[in-house]
Amino acid sequence: MHLPAAVRLLLESLPGPVARTEEVALADALGRVVAEDIYSPEDLPGFNRSSMDGYAVRAADTFGASEGLPAYLELSGEVLMGRKEELEVQAGKAVRISTGGFMPDGADAVVMVENTELSGSTVEIVKSVAPGESTIGRDEDIASGTLLIGKGQVLGPAQIGALAGVGITGVSVYELPAVGIISTGDELVEAGVKPGPGQVRDVNTAALGASVARAGCVARTYGIIEDDFDRLLAASRVALKECDALLISGGSSAGVRDMTLVVLEALGKPGVLAHGIYLKPGKPTLIAVCDGKPAIGLPGNPASALAVFRELLAPVLAKMRGEVSRPSAGVARTVEAVIDRSVSSLAGRVELVPVALRVEGEGMVASPILGKSNLIGTLSRANGQVRVPLGVEGLEQGQRVTVELLD
Amino acid sequence: MHLPAAVRLLLESLPGPVARTEEVALADALGRVVAEDIYSPEDLPGFNRSSMDGYAVRAADTFGASEGLPAYLELSGEVLMGRKEELEVQAGKAVRISTGGFMPDGADAVVMVENTELSGSTVEIVKSVAPGESTIGRDEDIASGTLLIGKGQVLGPAQIGALAGVGITGVSVYELPAVGIISTGDELVEAGVKPGPGQVRDVNTAALGASVARAGCVARTYGIIEDDFDRLLAASRVALKECDALLISGGSSAGVRDMTLVVLEALGKPGVLAHGIYLKPGKPTLIAVCDGKPAIGLPGNPASALAVFRELLAPVLAKMRGEVSRPSAGVARTVEAVIDRSVSSLAGRVELVPVALRVEGEGMVASPILGKSNLIGTLSRANGQVRVPLGVEGLEQGQRVTVELLD
Repeated sequence: MHLPAAVRLLLESLPGPVARTEEVALADALGRVVAEDIYSPEDLPGFNRSSMDGYAVRAADTFGASEGLPAYLELSGEVLMGRKEELEVQAGKAVRISTGGFMPDGADAVVMVENTELSGSTVEIVKSVAPGESTIGRDEDIASGTLLIGKGQVLGPAQIGALAGVGITGVSVYELPAVGIISTGDELVEAGVKPGPGQVRDVNTAALGASVARAGCVARTYGIIEDDFDRLLAASRVALKECDALLISGGSSAGVRDMTLVVLEALGKPGVLAHGIYLKPGKPTLIAVCDGKPAIGLPGNPASALAVFRELLAPVLAKMRGEVSRPSAGVARTVEAVIDRSVSSLAGRVELVPVALRVEGEGMVASPILGKSNLIGTLSRANGQVRVPLGVEGLEQGQRVTVELLD
Repeated sequence: MHLPAAVRLLLESLPGPVARTEEVALADALGRVVAEDIYSPEDLPGFNRSSMDGYAVRAADTFGASEGLPAYLELSGEVLMGRKEELEVQAGKAVRISTGGFMPDGADAVVMVENTELSGSTVEIVKSVAPGESTIGRDEDIASGTLLIGKGQVLGPAQIGALAGVGITGVSVYELPAVGIISTGDELVEAGVKPGPGQVRDVNTAALGASVARAGCVARTYGIIEDDFDRLLAASRVALKECDALLISGGSSAGVRDMTLVVLEALGKPGVLAHGIYLKPGKPTLIAVCDGKPAIGLPGNPASALAVFRELLAPVLAKMRGEVSRPSAGVARTVEAVIDRSVSSLAGRVELVPVALRVEGEGMVASPILGKSNLIGTLSRANGQVRVPLGVEGLEQGQRVTVELLD
């Protein structure tokens, strides 16, 4: 199955965001997804405010004022910060005000201090102002009752600041989806264990756990399960019950892949939706949905498992986090570079070529990191990847390419 | 001062990464910066391994084999996963093997199962293999003694996976820099407090706290300090002692800006390095280094403070985190769009125009979110910004622009 079709199939087969929500304090809200529309309970700033240091005036008193023919107003007081002064700006008068100060009654504009000169109690004004100039209306930043942050929006610093500004200090967000991670394979030992002959350490629990965290979800690891159908089914059932999604990586042999297929079929309905995607690395992937939860059989090869995670799981987990689709969804950080070596590829699949980027002269050069296979050592040295799209047979040395940054 | 010069000045005035390091487990290492070069203590995979399902053979036994003229070998055993079998592949023999299996003695290549047919104990081979084909050498993924991860590299899923693969389960990383945050202004009240007349809630503590966390550092907040020199100096001294960097935002009036300037001068040497940057929003910024720590006076306006944080502080904090400079540093996520409204700008500064992005037909359209000033409500609705570079006087409706994504 082609990659975009696989993503679409999985997205369409899922019920939507995790149903559970929780209340978090603003200080813990970064990156969280709001679970309901948030309307502003009040106006911001809540009063007419100066946006400049200068003098609050009646704009009409300044009409026609210029360097050659200044207007002269009488200083009648000063607005202190954080206070509503009991003073009124009458015709012919001016009141000193700072940026953010409360606009006194009677005044409708502020003359910037740069366009004034004070002599004694007389303010000389050399530039006229229009009504409203250098002021912010009481609801001009945020008006009471307006939609401040829509359901499904991710909270960044600006949104968190806006919430603080209108006095919202706690916010209802979706709970973080929990993703269960199982590694299978008789050849695997835990990372902290010395492998015996023929054994290798489990890389995927650590690498996929980090991927899940980076995707803004919670990783729950279930360790290594040997190549035994009953044990794998039992562990998968527990993990799928306790989590919102399940990743089973490995085993690398054909027999174990078949076993994972049967386990995924047995876990719930509708079961396996697709078997294999046209992606290198990452072809031997099993896509299942079991009782409304995605359950994915990832390749045992760590570089392949990570590629499938980025391409297939990242958009699915974004939906489960409750994120609404937005124009920027899935846009990677990229740079343009020249590739310094030709790479062959099959036209019938998307191929992800790991590269090492370097600055050379004014531009950047991308060196494909070639190896016999997609190995974790190779991938850990790459700081980018070049996507060879469907229908393209490789890249030519000297060609301009877009490099998706991996670091 | 121009923005790149300000960044360079600050980077050059800082001693480097925080000196403190700590040991973290792999499960907690995502995004951390390694504090020393890490060499692999062993080979990965550690033994010659099959990279395909098929048959381990002596490559010479397959030379010349084709669909028309197959080679016939005798099946003499099977390699089970996770074991070193006590069997040897002799001339004319083949041993069944799975992906990841231990290559038996005598064999130097694997014939993919797709190019074979088994009848009884005879393996028919229809395609020749070269020595080494479909195998991974014992140190082909990662060789013992090679530099695995250099000092200053950020740990992503691939690096964490590589460490797990060679048995490194704990890693020495730089401690996260602590950034102290102080808001000043007589007009400010905490976000949870109902403002009185002329008062507004403190937005910057929340917004800058989130920015600091997003930059991979730890925010320590010191609350609101009124416009009082002694109190601001005392609070700043405490914060700078307890933290690796200090952000003082506000006050918005000229008098308070002058006060912050004197405080920054009093905090340590060399003190204030620059006063004002050619950036909109963000001009009234004070750049100081006090006893080796950056101390920045940010504008009180939250949109301005956030812009200065992204442009000036983000690269500085990356250096303090211990990150080595890399080709991808500072590259934003971007999309190309057409701007649907003209925007004027002054040629003498960099201007950041917040935009709302939408998909229209095949492309994207960016609508500048205009307002009288850069307000937090405006910024919280933007999902991107367009950078009007130095020397350019605005953007024309219909022009193609690069939008830096903010969400």
